[in-house]
Amino acid sequence: MIKVGIIGATGYAGGELVRILSAHKDVEIKWYGSRSYIDEKYARVYQNMFQIVDDVCMDDNMAELADQVDVIFTATPQGLCGSLVNEEILSKVKIIDLSADFRIKDVKTYEQWYGIEHKSPQFIGEAVYGLCEINREDVKSARLVANPGCYTTCSILTAYPLAKEGVIDMHTLIVDAKSGTSGAGRGAKVPNLYCEVNENIKAYGVATHRHTPEIEEQLGYAAGEDVVISFTPHLVPMNRGILVTEYATLKKNVTEEQIKAIYDKYYSDEKFVRVLDGGICPETKWVEGSNYVDINFKIDPRTNRVVMMGAMDNLVKGAAGQAVQNMNLMFGLKESEGLELVPMFP
Amino acid sequence: MIKVGIIGATGYAGGELVRILSAHKDVEIKWYGSRSYIDEKYARVYQNMFQIVDDVCMDDNMAELADQVDVIFTATPQGLCGSLVNEEILSKVKIIDLSADFRIKDVKTYEQWYGIEHKSPQFIGEAVYGLCEINREDVKSARLVANPGCYTTCSILTAYPLAKEGVIDMHTLIVDAKSGTSGAGRGAKVPNLYCEVNENIKAYGVATHRHTPEIEEQLGYAAGEDVVISFTPHLVPMNRGILVTEYATLKKNVTEEQIKAIYDKYYSDEKFVRVLDGGICPETKWVEGSNYVDINFKIDPRTNRVVMMGAMDNLVKGAAGQAVQNMNLMFGLKESEGLELVPMFP
Amino acid sequence: MIKVGIIGATGYAGGELVRILSAHKDVEIKWYGSRSYIDEKYARVYQNMFQIVDDVCMDDNMAELADQVDVIFTATPQGLCGSLVNEEILSKVKIIDLSADFRIKDVKTYEQWYGIEHKSPQFIGEAVYGLCEINREDVKSARLVANPGCYTTCSILTAYPLAKEGVIDMHTLIVDAKSGTSGAGRGAKVPNLYCEVNENIKAYGVATHRHTPEIEEQLGYAAGEDVVISFTPHLVPMNRGILVTEYATLKKNVTEEQIKAIYDKYYSDEKFVRVLDGGICPETKWVEGSNYVDINFKIDPRTNRVVMMGAMDNLVKGAAGQAVQNMNLMFGLKESEGLELVPMFP
Amino acid sequence: MIKVGIIGATGYAGGELVRILSAHKDVEIKWYGSRSYIDEKYARVYQNMFQIVDDVCMDDNMAELADQVDVIFTATPQGLCGSLVNEEILSKVKIIDLSADFRIKDVKTYEQWYGIEHKSPQFIGEAVYGLCEINREDVKSARLVANPGCYTTCSILTAYPLAKEGVIDMHTLIVDAKSGTSGAGRGAKVPNLYCEVNENIKAYGVATHRHTPEIEEQLGYAAGEDVVISFTPHLVPMNRGILVTEYATLKKNVTEEQIKAIYDKYYSDEKFVRVLDGGICPETKWVEGSNYVDINFKIDPRTNRVVMMGAMDNLVKGAAGQAVQNMNLMFGLKESEGLELVPMFP
Repeated sequence: MIKVGIIGATGYAGGELVRILSAHKDVEIKWYGSRSYIDEKYARVYQNMFQIVDDVCMDDNMAELADQVDVIFTATPQGLCGSLVNEEILSKVKIIDLSADFRIKDVKTYEQWYGIEHKSPQFIGEAVYGLCEINREDVKSARLVANPGCYTTCSILTAYPLAKEGVIDMHTLIVDAKSGTSGAGRGAKVPNLYCEVNENIKAYGVATHRHTPEIEEQLGYAAGEDVVISFTPHLVPMNRGILVTEYATLKKNVTEEQIKAIYDKYYSDEKFVRVLDGGICPETKWVEGSNYVDINFKIDPRTNRVVMMGAMDNLVKGAAGQAVQNMNLMFGLKESEGLELVPMFP
Repeated sequence: MIKVGIIGATGYAGGELVRILSAHKDVEIKWYGSRSYIDEKYARVYQNMFQIVDDVCMDDNMAELADQVDVIFTATPQGLCGSLVNEEILSKVKIIDLSADFRIKDVKTYEQWYGIEHKSPQFIGEAVYGLCEINREDVKSARLVANPGCYTTCSILTAYPLAKEGVIDMHTLIVDAKSGTSGAGRGAKVPNLYCEVNENIKAYGVATHRHTPEIEEQLGYAAGEDVVISFTPHLVPMNRGILVTEYATLKKNVTEEQIKAIYDKYYSDEKFVRVLDGGICPETKWVEGSNYVDINFKIDPRTNRVVMMGAMDNLVKGAAGQAVQNMNLMFGLKESEGLELVPMFP
Repeated sequence: MIKVGIIGATGYAGGELVRILSAHKDVEIKWYGSRSYIDEKYARVYQNMFQIVDDVCMDDNMAELADQVDVIFTATPQGLCGSLVNEEILSKVKIIDLSADFRIKDVKTYEQWYGIEHKSPQFIGEAVYGLCEINREDVKSARLVANPGCYTTCSILTAYPLAKEGVIDMHTLIVDAKSGTSGAGRGAKVPNLYCEVNENIKAYGVATHRHTPEIEEQLGYAAGEDVVISFTPHLVPMNRGILVTEYATLKKNVTEEQIKAIYDKYYSDEKFVRVLDGGICPETKWVEGSNYVDINFKIDPRTNRVVMMGAMDNLVKGAAGQAVQNMNLMFGLKESEGLELVPMFP
Repeated sequence: MIKVGIIGATGYAGGELVRILSAHKDVEIKWYGSRSYIDEKYARVYQNMFQIVDDVCMDDNMAELADQVDVIFTATPQGLCGSLVNEEILSKVKIIDLSADFRIKDVKTYEQWYGIEHKSPQFIGEAVYGLCEINREDVKSARLVANPGCYTTCSILTAYPLAKEGVIDMHTLIVDAKSGTSGAGRGAKVPNLYCEVNENIKAYGVATHRHTPEIEEQLGYAAGEDVVISFTPHLVPMNRGILVTEYATLKKNVTEEQIKAIYDKYYSDEKFVRVLDGGICPETKWVEGSNYVDINFKIDPRTNRVVMMGAMDNLVKGAAGQAVQNMNLMFGLKESEGLELVPMFP
């Protein structure tokens, strides 16, 4: 059994880690870290886990935790993992960081967009960007995995094959993203109240959202050039789900069949990426609760653009599910172990 | 492997059977029956099953089906199972009927409340009412199981221990029930449109809902007397979940500890019934996607009443999950096989 | 023009007062009181009022306010109005208190259920309980009106005619109430977050909710006897709306026509109470945004009970709308002035 | 009093016309046309109108209607108005058509996108495109007004000033639109069921939606050149509201102040267009139930694009409200008569 510790176990992403890992046959959760609920029963914070989890919440002591477990998940705000990790800890335990601390290779870009100083830039180089479908081999041998952001996972996977194959003009790429409200976390803030979100939709963080440079960096690697995009997130009245609608001008004269073939080249062997049949637009409900990303596209000959669409559960493939997928790779397990979650409909 | 056929596989309850059974390690689904979608790919009707189910939908031919499978689930409107079943079929195959046809022992009561003639009353006697927690032993040897209704499962389990122990005056029992909209099925009707249900709550079927006699019959067995109740269902703007709030006058002077002890007597060994800690009211979200029923109660000394509450996912414990639980019992499998579904929150 | 001051203008009930009063032809709002947002533009707190309201928020200074306006609305938590009001203020200005401070005539009952000491019990006697349909004449001459609670308005109006006419056994009355989330206010608390409320329903405050004694007192006056009821509120995933489902045993052998006649006797001349046609259950969506209460009932001959149902917008008839209705009466205006709000559907 | 007839009074847009016109002081509704509900009480179809509207529904007889009223609103699917209108009718009565029949000046474009033959192309020339803020003077003298589509109203008004002033490269314009579900109408179809829409978001009609040529034609007039855009609508789980997010490359080096000045030039005198303060993104909830369009923008210097955002109630400014605004202009009334609807929050 792999012994697991979770720092930040009572946020929504932490809760989803507990949901998935509590049913994972090779895992034992040893540490439910939550500063806000120390010594409280975990199942009192998340009553869905009543009679499933009996443990109480612990403090966020990474050094002590490193002696007790094989892998630590940090599901905390940016800055925390970066400030706690050190060589001694990394020599004892693997870390999968769900925050942004080790996602961006250029520390200046990180500090600029996140507005905080990076406390352990020396580990940025070895950290592996844990987008399993793209960096699978590197993840397997990693000590420190930077689990991708929710918007970024969906945005990158949706555009990756066309970026990689040079089909689209990367200077024209626009990502219009829509997210359910669990992406905003469990913090008690007026804008996240039921009555403020329900029957409402809005854009936020226009031209300034922190997931922008992460998407740009990864798609830049794929395209082999610097990429600068427009990225606009929107808040949608639903609990889970991210939909991205991406627009780009075609560089070549390609048919829908050719683009389909490109997507299939990259994803036909990928269990968790489903390229839908022609004419079917992805819907977030079809992937809810699962680790799938559903992708499709449409060529618009009138504008010479391709419209790419991707749908995903932000808490699963966009956070906890992908983190477990990374863990499976790092420990030599079947990549889909514990993640054979059938989407729930309705 | 148990070979399974589903008649009515494209309704919401049928879809939930597919979700659960497709992940059940001892089951192979051989027949996706759906009159409306014959020859269409099942995953085109439920895109969540894309790349999970490759089969096409078939007609509802129970006789042919009986030769091919070990168990048939009928997730169809009342009347269908009753009109198709016969001795030859029952000699070949077990049947779990999710409709109301074999739930009520008194055929006159059935015909009166449902307004249709029962086509095979000769099987009502042998049919076992498949509320596993109460009729477990009978289910194990049954050929024909009447899978309980959604409201009824929740209503009965919530009141059962107090009815059985004679603590409450059954003449005072009032069941005020609230259901998510999936209970109304997938039929295209104006009252079930998004804009009609969203931001709305209403009662319906007041004093006339068909689940009433089913609850009365079962609680009557428990109490050892004829039971007549008030039952009022309400439609709530959510996909899944049933909450029942039940009111009854106490016949004895009992403490909360004593009532808790009664609930524990019946349910402490039941995996799928969770009696919550004192003071915590059940919420449907805590059981969503799972086979759990969460129950609690509160004594009101001012009125000498006990308020009992139960929460459940109407498509799981209220339909498909309980049907699979029955199947597990009928085939000698672990009762919880395929049903270790952790509730999803949020 | 009637000069109006609002203390607590940035809560949901306060916001609704602003919505209604800003379109009231005889009213000028002079004071938007909000301790949390002093000196901020009101329309920054409620962007729906952009270019409609240009004022900034002020402190909650009732004494100063009393010199400037003709009527003060206090839309604040219990205790505040009771601690601020005094004879000098009441000699200058009329007060409509949307909190519970002056609703309950028995100060001991108030202090027991609310858990706070009443700071100005000397005004309880003269305060008029502002349920306009019942206390219209008293309201007209009142200096201090206690605006009824949301659950209570709906619960009382739904049962009032049958209680008054002695048709129902008051000892059997059970009120099962369901409310949208705006009733919980705009405070930033985890249980009111979108993801906690959405796709969820729960009971709360079982046998202990503070609106219980208010309903009991008023229905007691109607019935001419002490009344003790079971009252259970539920939180429903919608912004607005209260539905009550009330159960009572019939004391007399009455027909549906007779009960309809009783309702008509009390309400056929009431603009804001609509007794629906036979067989139609009230729905909260049909009154959304308006000052209407929709009422209907069903006799259940099997149990000898009558099921009464009432639907209302909790922020309008349950708070701000009724407060304006009271103001209209107190100032000799047309009772429906500013309240001719057509319900919005969908 | 202006006598009004509505053809299609029981669809959602028709219902909204009734809501608004029933409170309009200069209007009397004489004809509630609805083929589906002939002879049924209107308030039985829309119970919100109980005791407000007493009339029954009538057939869709435009010729007879033309003799009885001063203005006809057709809130019907495309094709109907075009097939009924003729010179005799237009000589007797003004027509405001909420369908697409007379919106597009190029009949070939209409027939190509809508897939039907236009039955009265002779009136296309005289029909005025009823976007009041742009074509106010022409509307005043029109016999036949083509009321703009919901997506189009929001899309055009949001981009119009920048298109008109030549600030943006029209070849780069991308409109990503999100709509509440009432835009899909009241037809009973599976994809519009509560359980299919709730907790879900999807794009639809990608690169093929019929509002595309309407936006292109109107923005083409503004820009003085042919315009071809990418337009992608999305279905959002809410009843009302449209949000558009529009992307375009800047042709000139402009500051945010300069763009703000351009918006103010066109809209500062417009009652129903609110250009928000800097940094505030429009939200559909802030305009719900009202005739407002809220607009704002953000320059992204990294990409040299401007992101424009507009929010609107699709049934009000996007349909019935704008139709009444047109009627007011056509009959010389105050333009905002009956439309001083304060947005409802929450």
